[in-house]
Parts: sequence; C-alpha cells; structure tokens
Amino acid sequence: MARVYNFCAGPAVLPVEVLQQAADEMLDYQSSGMSIMESSHRGKEYEAVHNEAIANLRKLLNIGDDYAVLFLQGGASMQFAMVPMNLLGQGMTADYVNSGEWASKALKEAKKIGKVNVAADCSKDIPTRIPALSELKLTKGAAYVHITSNETISGAQWKMFPQTEAPLVADMSSDILSRPVDIDKFGLIYAGAQKNLGPSGFAVVIIRKDLAERAPESLPTMLQYRTHIASNSLYNTPPCFGIYILMLVTRWVLKVGAENLYRRNIEKAAKVYAAIDSSGGYYRGTAVKEYRSDMNVTWRMASEELENKFIKEAEKNGLKGLKGHRSVGGLRASIYNAFPMEGVDALVSFMKDFQRRNG
Amino acid sequence: MARVYNFCAGPAVLPVEVLQQAADEMLDYQSSGMSIMESSHRGKEYEAVHNEAIANLRKLLNIGDDYAVLFLQGGASMQFAMVPMNLLGQGMTADYVNSGEWASKALKEAKKIGKVNVAADCSKDIPTRIPALSELKLTKGAAYVHITSNETISGAQWKMFPQTEAPLVADMSSDILSRPVDIDKFGLIYAGAQKNLGPSGFAVVIIRKDLAERAPESLPTMLQYRTHIASNSLYNTPPCFGIYILMLVTRWVLKVGAENLYRRNIEKAAKVYAAIDSSGGYYRGTAVKEYRSDMNVTWRMASEELENKFIKEAEKNGLKGLKGHRSVGGLRASIYNAFPMEGVDALVSFMKDFQRRNG
Repeated sequence: MARVYNFCAGPAVLPVEVLQQAADEMLDYQSSGMSIMESSHRGKEYEAVHNEAIANLRKLLNIGDDYAVLFLQGGASMQFAMVPMNLLGQGMTADYVNSGEWASKALKEAKKIGKVNVAADCSKDIPTRIPALSELKLTKGAAYVHITSNETISGAQWKMFPQTEAPLVADMSSDILSRPVDIDKFGLIYAGAQKNLGPSGFAVVIIRKDLAERAPESLPTMLQYRTHIASNSLYNTPPCFGIYILMLVTRWVLKVGAENLYRRNIEKAAKVYAAIDSSGGYYRGTAVKEYRSDMNVTWRMASEELENKFIKEAEKNGLKGLKGHRSVGGLRASIYNAFPMEGVDALVSFMKDFQRRNG
Repeated sequence: MARVYNFCAGPAVLPVEVLQQAADEMLDYQSSGMSIMESSHRGKEYEAVHNEAIANLRKLLNIGDDYAVLFLQGGASMQFAMVPMNLLGQGMTADYVNSGEWASKALKEAKKIGKVNVAADCSKDIPTRIPALSELKLTKGAAYVHITSNETISGAQWKMFPQTEAPLVADMSSDILSRPVDIDKFGLIYAGAQKNLGPSGFAVVIIRKDLAERAPESLPTMLQYRTHIASNSLYNTPPCFGIYILMLVTRWVLKVGAENLYRRNIEKAAKVYAAIDSSGGYYRGTAVKEYRSDMNVTWRMASEELENKFIKEAEKNGLKGLKGHRSVGGLRASIYNAFPMEGVDALVSFMKDFQRRNG
C-alpha cells in the first residue's frame, strides 16, 4: 500500500492512525461484537463516542458552558440557511462581509430569509484578500455579523477577527482547530467537518445558547438550533460514523497538541509561500500577502497549459489534488492539520524541480 | 473477534462482507493512495461510487427516468419538513395517514407548513395496526397523500398500498429494498439510510421530477429538491462515506438477489411470529396479524420485570438490541435484509428455552 500526499480541499487527508483504528475495529467495535456503524445511537457504545467528541472539542477550543456544541447534518451549506432562519428576526438586519465565493453563498441564502447589509465586499478583488477591519460598515443593532474565517477557494484568511457589538457568526469550515480562537468573541461558529475534523456529512456548530431562543417555534423542528441543543444532537439519528471519526481526530489533536499543530501549520504554509516568492514570478501567489491562508495556498503560473502540466506531473509523483477550484482555476495546496510536513517538503522540492525543467 | 446477532432498529446490522471491504480499503481505496473518505467529491474515484450507488438503486427498484434518486442529509426527519415545504402549495391540502409514532412526526411537521387532513388515524390503537384502505378519507385535489410504509416502533406494516389520485408519498425508512415496490404508484419515496441501506447520516429520496417544480424559488437552496436534482446530489459535499457503504450494500443486494432477500425476509419474520404464536400467550404479539411487519417484530411479556430479564439474558447469549423503543417498551426484533437467518434461529431457540426456564 502506497499512500499519496493528498492536497484535496475537502474531503481531505485524515491522520493515518485514525484511519487505521477505524479499519481495525470496523467489524467489532471495542468488543461489542458489532461495528460502531451498526450500533444503536441510544446505546452505551455510541453514547460514549458522541460525548467524547463533544468533550474533546470543548477542551480543544476552551468552550464554556454558555455554548452548546452540536453536530448537524447538511454541512456548512445548510448552516447558510439555518443561521438566518434562527437568528435573523423580522425587521432586523444582518451584516455580511463578502470575502469570496463561500461568503457570497452564505449571503445569498440570508437574503432569502431577511434583510441583509453587505458590510464590505472584496469578493471580486484580485489579488484575493479579506477586508481590513477599518473597511467594515456595520449596522447599529444588527442581528449578527457574518464572516468567513478562511476562503478555501481564494486562499485568503482573516488574521484578526473584528470586535463586534452584534453577535459575530463565523463559517470556520476550513480553519477550525488549525489555530487558537477566542470562542467568547463569537455568537456562533459553524464548520463543515470534512477538512480539519473528519469526513463529510455534517457540520459542527458552536452556539451561544441564548441565541437559539430567537428562533420562531413555527420553524421546522429539525431546522431549529433549540431542538438540537435540548437533545444533545440526538433528536434524530445523528451521522454516527462521521462523529466517531471526528472523535478519533480530536483525540489525535489532543495527543499531538493543538499548539504544536498551529505552529506546524504556520511552518508548512510558510514553506510553500517561500517557494512561490523565491521563484522569480514563475509561481505567482493569488492572495495579498497579509491575508494568505495557512490552510489553502493558491497560486497561478504563466498559462493554463503549464498549470495542467504541473498538475499532471505532480500527480505522477504522488502529489494529488493540487488543481485549483473549478470556478477559478490555477493551483491550490490544501494543507490542513493532518497534512504531513514531509508532503510539504515533497511539494516544494517538486516545484523547484518543475521550474528548473520548464522555466 | 466474535460478532453478535444485532437486532437494533437502526443503525442496524450490515452485511459482514461490506464491512470487511470497507476495512480492507480504508487506507487505500482502489490503489488511489487515499481513503474514499479523504477523496474529493469531485474526483473520479468518488464520482464512480456515487453513480454506481444511484445506478444500483435504479436497477433494484426499477426506477424510471422520470424519477430522480437523491442522497440528502438530515435523514427521514428532515424529509418530514422538506416534503411539505416543496410539495404543499398555498391553499392546498395534504392528506396524512396516521399509523403510529413516525407518521405522527411527519404529520406534525407538515402542519407547520400548510393545511393537513388526517385521512385516517389508528396511531393509538392497541394492538397496533395500519388503517384498512376503506378507512381512508382522502381530499379531492389533495397536494399529496402521505403514508409510512412500516412503523418501526409499533411493528405494523402496509401490506398493500392505496391507489391514490394525488401523488402518493411514502416514508419507507424501515422497509425499502426489503420487498418489491411498484415505484410508478408513488410520487415520492424517502428512506433514512440506517436500516436496509447503509449507515446513518442521510436519506435516499426517489422523486418524480415534475413534483420538484412545485417548490417556491424562495425556499433555501439546500431545502429544494430541485437543487439536488439539478446537481445529481452534488450541490454541496455529500456524505461520501455513507454513500460508499450504500453502494457496497446495494452491490451485495444485487449479488444475493432482491427476490431472494424478500423471500428470506418473509421466512425470517414468520419464524419469530410462529415462536410468539406457539407460546400459548407467554409472548404476545403487539400488532394485528394481517399488518405484522416483516422488518420489526414486536411483542410483550407478562411484566416489564420479565421483559428486562429476557433482554439481559438474551444479551448474554449474543442476541443484542432486543429492547423495544423507549416510548413503548416491550420487545422488538429488527430483522432487516442483512440480518442472518441463523440469528433468527438463535432467537427462536432462546425464546423457547427462556419460556421453559421461566414459564
């Protein structure tokens, strides 16, 4: 078996030891005589998995008791709708910062539900970037302020979060657990699981409990945060296997140390950016330097032809998933928590070699 | 490793060879160098899985081109809301047949969205049953008629489906793929995956495509069937690993033969019911005989104390998950497609032995 270096943007690379454990206990979870996938979500085996997953997230992110940690199906895309459905009361305005494709999607869904103010818009800027805090035009008495902490497609990342009067809501799908975050600054954080947390199929939602009370009772039961807070995300059958993998991943993060991962993430990104910056313009970074993402490094080359050649040769060398998002093209290296340093070194060395041969 | 006989109602037993294959290729799917869980949902490996899963379902259920086959997150509980949100236009009435706890939940959500007529109600009947076709009071020009083909909790199952003028919508969570179904009789079928199809975390929706056009464009994008039809359930990242398991399960059904499974399901259920009926009232079936479910066999004993003793001893003998749903108590043996005949024989023999020792 030869594992490749997997630069996919999500679903993405997972820690090998997590996959190994999942494989080892696939037919018999902890001597229960069944797979965790076959276990009742009301049984003691799954219950322990579920509660450890929540406890690990609470520990890693230092989440207080005034916040609930939820596992909700539908990924971040469902959160684009659930956030305004629950938090944007009639007559209120929500502020949205449009920093790129994912922020635009969140914004579009919010407009279906209520009144929205675009607090800043740099979604079409090239090079890509995040608005400066000074650019934000926030609404007095807003229902909430929505940001996208890392734009997976453009490769731009908020480096400092705004201090807002209204509850700050953040889509952290692609950088949760990659760096320290002060939860108390946020009213709600959501993140699709398939990048730093586990497999696809659900989102983690961290919500200040009082905010859930804003939702009208007339909302469908499944679409109210209140429902899932009251039932500890067990109102209906949860995505048990995905949550089990998240539990193993968070256990791994605790073992490696969140602070170590954070330092390693900075180092990994710095190496790829250094390769770009030292190429004399052969590789051109897509994002403004001060907003460069530590999770998704994006760059272009002189022509699409050359980019395709790069992608194909990289793949032959065991470097997979380097193609940029289909909406923007170019190249992208997604280097989440579980992406190993050796893979970054292999990419950097391949970049230099490719330039030498094709420069 | 000792596998037990798993009578859980869902998540439930899966074919051993499916679990074995999932374990074997967990770190390296088909020589791709990564897990299918780590693969991009836009890549060729996952795309083949996704499309085979759909093709297998089409083949097994003989689904025509006028129907779409979708994989949607949120399970059947989300469908309780999505069905009326998409199909119950303003000023229209939906007919709901209330056959038990699951039908009641669907009904409750529909009432939040629009006008509902309860076409029949036997949800409180003991013994549990399904309404006779002659009892149904259907609305002229109804938006649709909703039924629950098998009540997992009460153990009652529709044996013949009504011929309705309005589109027939069925929650088939607990008996899809267990018996032949004439899809053309239905406007929409949905089923939580965690019983006969795979792990928890999504629902299969089979929808006549024209019905999706009823939905107002103002609905959140993720809550419109239209969105998922247009994108082949790839509008956002789907629950890839769950769909992969469903693909393996449907491959297994094709290999064993749907008709063989159907015959075996009847035989399995008949054996347990025979054990009940021949016990001289020691075990008392919960459902009216003509509506007895082939998937979930439910029964009571003289006292809760005795039932608990039965459950505990059964567990010690490798028969797990026999406790009835927490809302009704008693006993329940869920014997879905993947549940082996030997497990049924073991249960029957345990029932006789238990009676002998405690009768």
